[in-house]
Amino acid sequence: MIPSLTGFYAPCSHPKVSNRLTLLAESLPSDFKELQFSLERAHGNRNRCPVPGTLYNMNTFESFKALDRDSLLKKEAKKILDDIHSGKVEEDSAVLSRFFIISFADLKKWNFLHWLAFPALVVGPPAMVLDLRPAREVFNQGEVQSLSAALNEWRKSSLTTGVLYFLVSIASNSHATIRQLKDWKACQDDGQKLLFGFYDPSCRLDNPGWPLRNYLAFISLRCQDGKIQFLCYREKRGFADMGLSLVGEAVISPSKDCSDPQCVPKAVGWEPKPKSINLAESMNPERLAVSAADLNLKLMRWRQLPSLDLGTLSSVRCLLLGAGTLGCQVARMLMAWGVRKITLLDSGLVAMSNPVRQSLYTLDDCLDGGSLKAVAAARTLKRIFPAVEAEGVTLSIPMPGHPVPTNEVARVLEDCERLRDLIASHDVTFLLTDTRESRWLPALLCASENKIAITAALGFDSYLVMRHGAGPLYVSDQTNSLSTVDGNGGQRLGCYFCGDIVAPIDSMSNRTLDQQCTVTRPGLAPIASALAVELLVGLLHHPNGIHAPGEIANSIMSSSEQPFGILPHQIRGLLPQYSQVTLIGHASNSCTACSTTVVSEFRRRGMEFILQAIDHPTYLEDLTGLTELIESANSFKLDWDDETDDSDM
Amino acid sequence: MIPSLTGFYAPCSHPKVSNRLTLLAESLPSDFKELQFSLERAHGNRNRCPVPGTLYNMNTFESFKALDRDSLLKKEAKKILDDIHSGKVEEDSAVLSRFFIISFADLKKWNFLHWLAFPALVVGPPAMVLDLRPAREVFNQGEVQSLSAALNEWRKSSLTTGVLYFLVSIASNSHATIRQLKDWKACQDDGQKLLFGFYDPSCRLDNPGWPLRNYLAFISLRCQDGKIQFLCYREKRGFADMGLSLVGEAVISPSKDCSDPQCVPKAVGWEPKPKSINLAESMNPERLAVSAADLNLKLMRWRQLPSLDLGTLSSVRCLLLGAGTLGCQVARMLMAWGVRKITLLDSGLVAMSNPVRQSLYTLDDCLDGGSLKAVAAARTLKRIFPAVEAEGVTLSIPMPGHPVPTNEVARVLEDCERLRDLIASHDVTFLLTDTRESRWLPALLCASENKIAITAALGFDSYLVMRHGAGPLYVSDQTNSLSTVDGNGGQRLGCYFCGDIVAPIDSMSNRTLDQQCTVTRPGLAPIASALAVELLVGLLHHPNGIHAPGEIANSIMSSSEQPFGILPHQIRGLLPQYSQVTLIGHASNSCTACSTTVVSEFRRRGMEFILQAIDHPTYLEDLTGLTELIESANSFKLDWDDETDDSDM
Repeated sequence: MIPSLTGFYAPCSHPKVSNRLTLLAESLPSDFKELQFSLERAHGNRNRCPVPGTLYNMNTFESFKALDRDSLLKKEAKKILDDIHSGKVEEDSAVLSRFFIISFADLKKWNFLHWLAFPALVVGPPAMVLDLRPAREVFNQGEVQSLSAALNEWRKSSLTTGVLYFLVSIASNSHATIRQLKDWKACQDDGQKLLFGFYDPSCRLDNPGWPLRNYLAFISLRCQDGKIQFLCYREKRGFADMGLSLVGEAVISPSKDCSDPQCVPKAVGWEPKPKSINLAESMNPERLAVSAADLNLKLMRWRQLPSLDLGTLSSVRCLLLGAGTLGCQVARMLMAWGVRKITLLDSGLVAMSNPVRQSLYTLDDCLDGGSLKAVAAARTLKRIFPAVEAEGVTLSIPMPGHPVPTNEVARVLEDCERLRDLIASHDVTFLLTDTRESRWLPALLCASENKIAITAALGFDSYLVMRHGAGPLYVSDQTNSLSTVDGNGGQRLGCYFCGDIVAPIDSMSNRTLDQQCTVTRPGLAPIASALAVELLVGLLHHPNGIHAPGEIANSIMSSSEQPFGILPHQIRGLLPQYSQVTLIGHASNSCTACSTTVVSEFRRRGMEFILQAIDHPTYLEDLTGLTELIESANSFKLDWDDETDDSDM
Repeated sequence: MIPSLTGFYAPCSHPKVSNRLTLLAESLPSDFKELQFSLERAHGNRNRCPVPGTLYNMNTFESFKALDRDSLLKKEAKKILDDIHSGKVEEDSAVLSRFFIISFADLKKWNFLHWLAFPALVVGPPAMVLDLRPAREVFNQGEVQSLSAALNEWRKSSLTTGVLYFLVSIASNSHATIRQLKDWKACQDDGQKLLFGFYDPSCRLDNPGWPLRNYLAFISLRCQDGKIQFLCYREKRGFADMGLSLVGEAVISPSKDCSDPQCVPKAVGWEPKPKSINLAESMNPERLAVSAADLNLKLMRWRQLPSLDLGTLSSVRCLLLGAGTLGCQVARMLMAWGVRKITLLDSGLVAMSNPVRQSLYTLDDCLDGGSLKAVAAARTLKRIFPAVEAEGVTLSIPMPGHPVPTNEVARVLEDCERLRDLIASHDVTFLLTDTRESRWLPALLCASENKIAITAALGFDSYLVMRHGAGPLYVSDQTNSLSTVDGNGGQRLGCYFCGDIVAPIDSMSNRTLDQQCTVTRPGLAPIASALAVELLVGLLHHPNGIHAPGEIANSIMSSSEQPFGILPHQIRGLLPQYSQVTLIGHASNSCTACSTTVVSEFRRRGMEFILQAIDHPTYLEDLTGLTELIESANSFKLDWDDETDDSDM
């Protein structure tokens, strides 16, 4: 699409300064409605007489250089010629001042290269300007006064102030009238003195302005040959100035070249050379950063992913539980996708061993005992991208199997409440801590709040990335009970705990250092973090959102439907095999985190329930029926002896 | 393994300060050889009389707390008792001063918790100390002089200076002799006055030091009952001091409890409480960072990857071509794996759009026009880990299809030479630039130098990570020609260009911004970078190194052989499918970068060849036979019409 521009002209209003074509923000409206609005706003503004233009923006510097400017000029001049022949000029004389721009915008460097042209028809033989004098010298005093008054009236009226070309008719009694161009025949016939007037942007007394060229071509082709008079209208302090305004005579020969409407006219009108403007230096670095970061995403949307919803991404509120190897990398990935609201939660300090693996910290963060991780991570995010709304929350997540001493019950309850509020006030929660049990409470809270939860978990050389299914929904009877099916009537997708047959317990105490800090191959965390964020982006673009069913790789039908590809439930990867698989696991009725039993009980008893679960993990097993399940499994003994006889088969 | 320690004692040498057991770096030798050496060094040092000890280091704080200290004390006391009964004490009296330590080292926080015990046998009934006076008051002046001389001689001889327990025999003529403990029977029988002497670390005049306890037990069990005399030897300014040294009498009852060699003795000797020492505060932050970063890797090696070769990783020199999204992330991954020598090469400046995707930059790097990327990246690596040897090289890689203007030939040739030198002086080159053609020269140089090359390349939502095969080898005839097979006689693995049927050309000019800066889904770069580094780590641990054959996922045999898993040739991933496959591609005889033809020609003509290839990409196609191949492919037309009849099958 070649966008239409609106340039703004005004007659010269200063004896020493010519007026130029002005291009403003509203010159390039982003849509039609805005165009209408800006034109309406401009309408009646005496200093903004609209003229039509065209923008030829090239996508590459090479194509800018390679443009056939001569052809382009002819093409634009032809538009003017067509408008003369068709009579459009009489209706809207601004088309005589048509202009165009070729441009190349290096959006990465805020460098804008542009080259303007004001096409002027070259008609042959050319008109000759014989005489050119200030109007005051041409007219008698009565004429000057009457003409000034008439012109001031014309410029004052919102209906005519923007009309660049007009007729001046002066009666023998010196009375001057200003008339529209379309009245030229009537004027010609009424025997009064006729001048072809136009708003002249030039201030020079020895030369009329550029618009006269097309004006004379128009007169030649539409009105008359021979000697004509013209008025270059100029003003001073908002009023017609007969000392600055010029009156001239031109001798117009009958046009040969352009009388055929099909002819391609000769034209001139390129400015001497292209201009470039670099906005970077005048811009605030923060705004530059925002613009630059957005550019990456807009480029992605332009051709590859037209359905990319940058609005959703920039407004989605993400809560990251854990600001370690995974948390740092997930935060970076979110920023790269245009997510702007990121809260990091961690209870720890930046340790000396962190920076080489945790990408938001440097050695400085480790000094003097180490900064609070969540705070340091948020600080670095802002250093990377100042417009991010990053916040660090220092909080340790209460965990089953880590019983709470009596004197700490109040604090732990407060932490639980705070975590619940955080999850409720965010759209997405990432579970990125380094123990199983620290994921239990967030998994339960996300299920209860029906919030998107994404888990990334690492083994030594394997990873799991998954989205938790939607939480159990209330059924619409009065018992406030929860349904075991999801919003679509299908089985809900599982959460991180759905596959377990034991409740989460303390997995940290009595573990050696290599078992505690989840020693992993360094490549895992970036992979799992990247997949976790890509999974979220896919989910946010899925029409069913949190209720979207799980998809499996190579399910061609679904992948072709979604521009982001399939939307898996779980992705498991094994580094020693360089392999990655997608899996689907449905919600379990015995799940200790997301089952209806657990969620109902949590809603009924609230924090009391949480405390009990934390102090006695077997309580969860009893509640969900896992205890029964384990017992029945243990009591069921196969008679292996009968089988062993077949071992040689 | 429970390590043996060597503690060091000395007699008290100051009237107000007791001597303590000293543990030094050489107390805990890392291997037997070092132990021998340090003991030899210590031998004859009068202030370092060695005593044996044992270190019980616990891997967790919980196991430290849970230790049965009473049993441990008894177990260690039993060793002393056994040494008494077996006669070992007479041979090496230091075993009477046996000690042990229980400890827990929190290596992450440099906090060392330790608890010492000096087991003292509790024999029953206990010996009674009757009299305790300074030696000067007990002996006459002649005895004092003779005894002092004898003790000084004992302490002076390198053979006896470290012997903590000894006998003092004083003749009736006041002549004193010092004798080894094993001579006690002879001394007892010679009718001279006998004292049981020992180096007393205590400075107190009212109390002998702790070693007397086990000494008395030894005397009771091995030597005699009844009244005995002992000498607590102390010195001042390096000489025996008879005012500080004490002489006492003890009455020893016949031992009941411990006379049976099988008995488990009662014992005392734990220090009142554990001590903890935190070294972090006294350590240089840089050294802390090194130690911390190494810890991650050592923990990984400890249990999961015993074959992890940290020495190789820390000494491998990596050259990263491109310091963009891939380069930044690869550098981080290398550091996480313990790689310490990283050179980044880039010709660009940090742009405003970089920090959100390129993980070594922040907004600060973009100000004032932007820092040089390679320099900024190296600077950030040092901020993360000060001990890294990171260097930034600003250089643009000459590229085929980007012809060189005459006035720049010298510069380009210089760049080529510099790149060749860089590749030659590094062990590994990562190809991480954002165009195909910028990878050509490095691919060729790596093939020619037979250096490891790893490529990571991104599409919009797909990635390729591969290791280039070894370069073509010289065959051992005199023509200096290159072999088409690899070092093992098999087909060489391909390079990044082996699959192509056209030479690399200018892919950047005339491309729009979204095509130029390789717009990709943000998750790809971290994934590809992580895989590239994991691939290198696998390669470095493979016995065949650069000649290792390519492996495919699920080739179970090979994966079980290698602790790092399979060693693929190519890994290709497709984000919309969350899928990843491993592929093998062999070297092509028509490859424009690594074929014997190209490598030979480069070696023959050097930079002249490079310039020709850069200026005329079709030259490469002609040289390698690709031109011929393309022509023959074009001339070969299938008669599709015959086939279409079967389309309904």
